[in-house]
Amino acid sequence: MRKPIIGVIGSGDAARSTDVGMAFELGAMIAKEGWILVSGGRNVGVMDSVNKGAKSVGGLTVGILPGKDATELSDFVDIPILTGMGSARNYINVLTSNVVIACGQGGAGTASEIAMALKNKKDVILLNESAEAVAFFGKIGGTRTHIAATAEEAIEIAKQILNV
Amino acid sequence: MRKPIIGVIGSGDAARSTDVGMAFELGAMIAKEGWILVSGGRNVGVMDSVNKGAKSVGGLTVGILPGKDATELSDFVDIPILTGMGSARNYINVLTSNVVIACGQGGAGTASEIAMALKNKKDVILLNESAEAVAFFGKIGGTRTHIAATAEEAIEIAKQILNV
Amino acid sequence: MRKPIIGVIGSGDAARSTDVGMAFELGAMIAKEGWILVSGGRNVGVMDSVNKGAKSVGGLTVGILPGKDATELSDFVDIPILTGMGSARNYINVLTSNVVIACGQGGAGTASEIAMALKNKKDVILLNESAEAVAFFGKIGGTRTHIAATAEEAIEIAKQILNV
Amino acid sequence: MRKPIIGVIGSGDAARSTDVGMAFELGAMIAKEGWILVSGGRNVGVMDSVNKGAKSVGGLTVGILPGKDATELSDFVDIPILTGMGSARNYINVLTSNVVIACGQGGAGTASEIAMALKNKKDVILLNESAEAVAFFGKIGGTRTHIAATAEEAIEIAKQILNV
Repeated sequence: MRKPIIGVIGSGDAARSTDVGMAFELGAMIAKEGWILVSGGRNVGVMDSVNKGAKSVGGLTVGILPGKDATELSDFVDIPILTGMGSARNYINVLTSNVVIACGQGGAGTASEIAMALKNKKDVILLNESAEAVAFFGKIGGTRTHIAATAEEAIEIAKQILNV
Repeated sequence: MRKPIIGVIGSGDAARSTDVGMAFELGAMIAKEGWILVSGGRNVGVMDSVNKGAKSVGGLTVGILPGKDATELSDFVDIPILTGMGSARNYINVLTSNVVIACGQGGAGTASEIAMALKNKKDVILLNESAEAVAFFGKIGGTRTHIAATAEEAIEIAKQILNV
Repeated sequence: MRKPIIGVIGSGDAARSTDVGMAFELGAMIAKEGWILVSGGRNVGVMDSVNKGAKSVGGLTVGILPGKDATELSDFVDIPILTGMGSARNYINVLTSNVVIACGQGGAGTASEIAMALKNKKDVILLNESAEAVAFFGKIGGTRTHIAATAEEAIEIAKQILNV
Repeated sequence: MRKPIIGVIGSGDAARSTDVGMAFELGAMIAKEGWILVSGGRNVGVMDSVNKGAKSVGGLTVGILPGKDATELSDFVDIPILTGMGSARNYINVLTSNVVIACGQGGAGTASEIAMALKNKKDVILLNESAEAVAFFGKIGGTRTHIAATAEEAIEIAKQILNV
C-alpha cells in the first residue's frame, strides 16, 4: 500500500507569521498520519515551515523546486526534485498530490496552484485563506473546494477525501 | 520592431455564448492593431472564437497547445506550438504574451493562467469576468489587474500598457 | 492549408564557423519554400544564423526559448515563445516541427533534441553531423534518420518527407 | 546530510532481458548503499526492474512519470511524481539525479536523457551501452561520460563521482 501524498502550498517570501506558524503545525500533523509531504521545497515561508514541522516528528518530505539546483532548497526537504521549469512546476505539485492544502493567505503563485489543482480534479482545502479566495475558488471549484479554520480541521477533511 | 503579442485566455468547452461572441470581436480588434494573437489554440470556446475573429481580418495567430499533436487544433491557428505538457503550457502562454486578456467568465484553467501571469509580473485585463474573479484578482494582482466591460475598452487598456 | 514548420537545431556558443555559414544558407532556403522556421531562438551560433538567413529573404521565424524573458533572443526571430523551462523546451521544439534538421556538429543539447525527435516519431535530417552521430542516430532512429551533405540535399529530403 | 540520488535510465517496452536482469541487480546495489533511486517510474523494462531490485532490499524509490495519473506506474515505486509532461520529464529526472546511470542498450528516449544529463553537467555512467553510444557520448560528453561493464563497476564509479 503506497502512502498518501499531501501537497501543501502557500506564500513564500511574503508569508504572514501566523501562516508560517500554522504551516509548522500542519506539517507535523501530516507526518504523524504517516503521509508523505510534498511542497514547493524552497527555504522560505510556508514551504520551509511545513517541511520543518514534518521533520520535527520524523516525516518524509519531498520538495518540487522551480530551479535547476539546490540554491533555494529548504534544509527540511529529504528529496529535492529539481525541475528547472519555474512556475510550470506548480502543475507537477498538484498532479503528484492526492489532496492539496493551501495554508494561509496565498499570493498569485498559490492561486495558480489552487486553480491548477481544481482544473485537474483534485480536492483542495483552503486553510485560513482570504474571504476573496474562499468566494472565488468556491465558485469555480464547487464541491472540490473545502474550507478549514485550523490545521486539525484540514487533517479531518483530508482523511474524509482520502477515505482513511 | 517586433510586433506586440497579446494573449487571450478564457473558457473552452464550458464557454458561454456571450463570451464566445465577444472573443470573436476581440480577436478582430487585436488583428486590426497589427498585433500577434496567442491563445491556447484549441478548437473550442473562447480560444477557437478569438482566432476566428483575428483571421476574419487577416491577423496572425499562434496557438500553444496542451497536446502532442493537432487533434484539438483550431482551424484558425496559423502557427500551432505543440507542447505535450497539458496545463503546464499555461505558463508558456503567459510568459510569451506582452499583455494577457481574460475574455469572459473563465473556469479553473483560466484562473490558473491569470494567476501565473500576475505571478510573472504581467498585466492582465479582465474582460467581463465574474464579480468574484474581479475581487480576488484585484486583491492579489493590485495595479496589474485591469477591468474592462467591452472589447474596445480592453484594447484601449492594452494600448496604454504597451505604450503605443 | 497551414504552412509546414521546419525545426532547425544545432550548436549555440560552440558552433563552428562552417556550420554557422551553412545555417544561414539553410534558413534562406527554408524561407524561399514558404515554410515557417522554428528554432531555439537564441542569439548565438546555428540558431541565430538560421534565423538571419530566413529573414534575409523575408521568411517567418519562430523561436522557442529556454528563458523567461528576451535577454538571449535573436534579433531575427519574429515570434519569440518564452518557455522559462530550460532544456525542457527542446521537447516543444521537436513536437512543433514537421521535420527536424540538425545543422552541423552539435553538442549535448542538439543530441537531446535529435533523440527526442526520434522518440516522438519525427523524421530528422543530419546535415554535416559527425561520423559518430551518424552511426549512433542511424542505429536508434532507423529509417527516420536521414543524412545530408549540403543544405540543398536537406531541403530535397524535407520535401520528400513533407510529400510536397 | 541528504542522501545521494541516483538516476537510472534505460529501455522500457523494448528492453532486452539481459538489461532487465542487470537493472534488478543495479537497483539492489543502489539501495544497499543507502542511496535514493530515481527513475522514469513506469511498469516496464529497465524502469520497473531497477525499482523492483531496490525494493527487494528495502530501498527508497522515486518515479518521475510522463503521465498525469498512475496508469503506467511501477508497483515498486514508493513516491510517484506525476508530471503530465511526456518526455519533457526527462529533464527533471536528470536535474534531480546526482549521478545518472544508463543501464543497457537504450533507445531514443534513453539517448535524450543521457544527452540532457551531459548538457546539464551531470556525470553519466554507460553500463553495457552499445558501441555506437559509447563512441558518440564519449565524443560529446568528454570526461563526464564513464563506461562500466558490470553493476559493481557502475557503483564503484558512482562512489568516486559522489566522493563517498
